[in-house]
Amino acid sequence: MFVAIDGGGTKSRVLITNEDGVVLSYFEGPGLNINVLGNKSFEENIKQVIWRISKDFDIEDHLFCFGLAGASKNEEKISGILKRIGVKKFKVLTDIEATFLALGGGDDCIIVSSGTGSFAYGQRENLKYRAGGWGYLFDDEGSGYWVGRKALKYAFMSIDGRIGKTILVKRLEELFQVDSLEKAIPLIYSEYKLPRKTAELALIVKKSAEEGDNISLLILKEAAQELFKLVDTVACNLKLTKEDSFHVYGTGGFLSNVKCVEDILREKILKKYPCFIFEIRNIPSIIGSLLMCYKVKFNRIDKDFLKKVIQGYKQMKK
Amino acid sequence: MFVAIDGGGTKSRVLITNEDGVVLSYFEGPGLNINVLGNKSFEENIKQVIWRISKDFDIEDHLFCFGLAGASKNEEKISGILKRIGVKKFKVLTDIEATFLALGGGDDCIIVSSGTGSFAYGQRENLKYRAGGWGYLFDDEGSGYWVGRKALKYAFMSIDGRIGKTILVKRLEELFQVDSLEKAIPLIYSEYKLPRKTAELALIVKKSAEEGDNISLLILKEAAQELFKLVDTVACNLKLTKEDSFHVYGTGGFLSNVKCVEDILREKILKKYPCFIFEIRNIPSIIGSLLMCYKVKFNRIDKDFLKKVIQGYKQMKK
Repeated sequence: MFVAIDGGGTKSRVLITNEDGVVLSYFEGPGLNINVLGNKSFEENIKQVIWRISKDFDIEDHLFCFGLAGASKNEEKISGILKRIGVKKFKVLTDIEATFLALGGGDDCIIVSSGTGSFAYGQRENLKYRAGGWGYLFDDEGSGYWVGRKALKYAFMSIDGRIGKTILVKRLEELFQVDSLEKAIPLIYSEYKLPRKTAELALIVKKSAEEGDNISLLILKEAAQELFKLVDTVACNLKLTKEDSFHVYGTGGFLSNVKCVEDILREKILKKYPCFIFEIRNIPSIIGSLLMCYKVKFNRIDKDFLKKVIQGYKQMKK
Repeated sequence: MFVAIDGGGTKSRVLITNEDGVVLSYFEGPGLNINVLGNKSFEENIKQVIWRISKDFDIEDHLFCFGLAGASKNEEKISGILKRIGVKKFKVLTDIEATFLALGGGDDCIIVSSGTGSFAYGQRENLKYRAGGWGYLFDDEGSGYWVGRKALKYAFMSIDGRIGKTILVKRLEELFQVDSLEKAIPLIYSEYKLPRKTAELALIVKKSAEEGDNISLLILKEAAQELFKLVDTVACNLKLTKEDSFHVYGTGGFLSNVKCVEDILREKILKKYPCFIFEIRNIPSIIGSLLMCYKVKFNRIDKDFLKKVIQGYKQMKK
C-alpha cells in the first residue's frame, strides 16, 4: 500500500491508496515545513501524522512518499527523523518535485507556478533546473503576492501623483471600505503583512484590467514577463532550443485564474519556443507524491493508476 | 523658554533652550508615534516625557513644539491628550514638517529624504505637497530599504540565471559568512524582516557599484530615478517650472552617503529644472521643531537663533 504525505508550513495532507490506486484514506494534519517549524516541532508533527496512520494501518508494510516544503537542504536530517520514529520504506521529495510529478505525470516537462509565490522547475533526461521560489521577502516575481503588492504601490503612487490615474484606487477603497485610500493605511499595515492576504488583491487587478485600466494591465503584463523569465531560464538550462517540442504546464491560483496573464505568457513562450505546448493544469502535489510511491515500487509510471487516483482523490474531497 | 520634542516609533528626543537659543537640556525618551503605539501607550509615554521636563522646569511657562511621526491624521486626538495632561502652549507638526523646517530654516524649499524610508515634501507660499512616505510595505521607492531589497532580489535572480552575473552574490556571501548564498536564506528570513536591517545592505550595493558591478550601478540609477520622481511630483504640485529658481535639499542616511545617487539625482533635477539648486543637508528634525517654537513666539524666523541652536545641539551631542 502507498502513503503520500504532503507538508506545507501550516498544514499537511495524507493520502493512502492500495497498489491499484483505490483510495483508502485521506486526512489533513499539522504543518510539516522543517524550515518554518524547526527540528523539534517538525519531529512532533510528523510523529502525530504517523501515529494517526498507524491506528488503521500497519506502517511497516507501507511505502511512504513525502513531498515537503523546506526539504531541499534538509534531506538527511528528515531521513534521520523518519528512521528514528519507525518509518522504514520512504522517499523524500521537495514540494516542487511533487508538483512536477503531479502535473507531468512522470514525463519530462517544465512547470511554472504562480499562486501566492512563484517558481519554475523542469526536468529533461538527466537535467533538472529550478528558477525563482526564493520566497516573498525579496523574490516571488510575477506571483499573486507580487501583483497585490504592486496594486497597493501603484495606487499610492497614483494618489500622490507620481503616476497617472488608476481605477485601482477606487477598487481598493471599496474593498477596505474607506472613502479615501489613505485612511486604510493602518488596516493595511495591520492585516496585509502576510503574503497570502496581499495575494488576494491580485483579483482586483484582474477585474480592473478587464475594465480597461491601463495601470492594472501594465501590472499583469509585467507579471507575465516575470513568469516568462522563469520559464525561459529553466528552458535554457535544460538546453532546450526553438527546434524542441516540450510541454510547459502553468499552475497556481493566480496564473490559473487570470486568463490574460496565461495568454500573454503563452504568447511569449511560443515566440521564443514555437514548438512548445503551454497549458494550465492544476493537480494537487499529493498526487505527485503518490505517483512516486508507484514509481519506487514498480520502477515505472502507469497512466491508468494516475487517472484512477486523481478520480478517487476528487471524490474524497467532495 | 522653548521645548522641542521629536517622536518616532522607538524613541523620542527632547531639546530645551531659552529664547536666545542657549541649550538648557537635552535627553532621549520613549517612542511617540501614535499609529505605532496606540492611544493609550502614546499617552503613557508622553506623560513620562512631560514629567521628566517638569522636574527641572515649570511647564506652564514653556512653549512646546512637537514633531511627531504619525501626527498627520491624529492632530485633534494628540491635542486632546496634551491638554488633558497639562501642556497649555503647544504646536504639533508631523516629523516631515519638522525636518522641512530644519533643512530649509524657514524658507520655502523642497526636501527629499532617503534613509530607511523615502519621501519628498515642499512648501511654496501657500502650497504644500508631499509625495511618497507611505511606508515599507508597498512604497519607499528609492530608499535604503528599497535598495537593500533589490540587492537580495537581484543576487538570487543572478544565482538561478534570470539575470547576468553580479559581484553582489559574493559580497552578500561574505556578509552572511556562507560559502553559497542559498545557505543564508534561513538567516535572511529570520533577521531581515525589519526594513532597517535590510537598508543596511544598501552600502554593499554602493561598494559593488564602485567596483564597477553593472547590476549594482543599475540599482543605484533606479533609486536616483525614483527619488527624482518624488522631487518632480512635488515640484509640479508647487507649480514650479523650468524658469523658477528653488532650493532642493537631500537628506537621509542613504542619499547622504552614496555620492553617485546624489550626483545622478542632481543631474536629473537640473535637466528638468535648470535654475534649481540641489544640495545635501543633514540637520536633525528637532532643530525644526525648536525653530517652530521661535516662530510661534516671535512670528518670524531668526537665522542667528538657528545657527546658535545647531551649534549648541552639536556640542550637547558630543
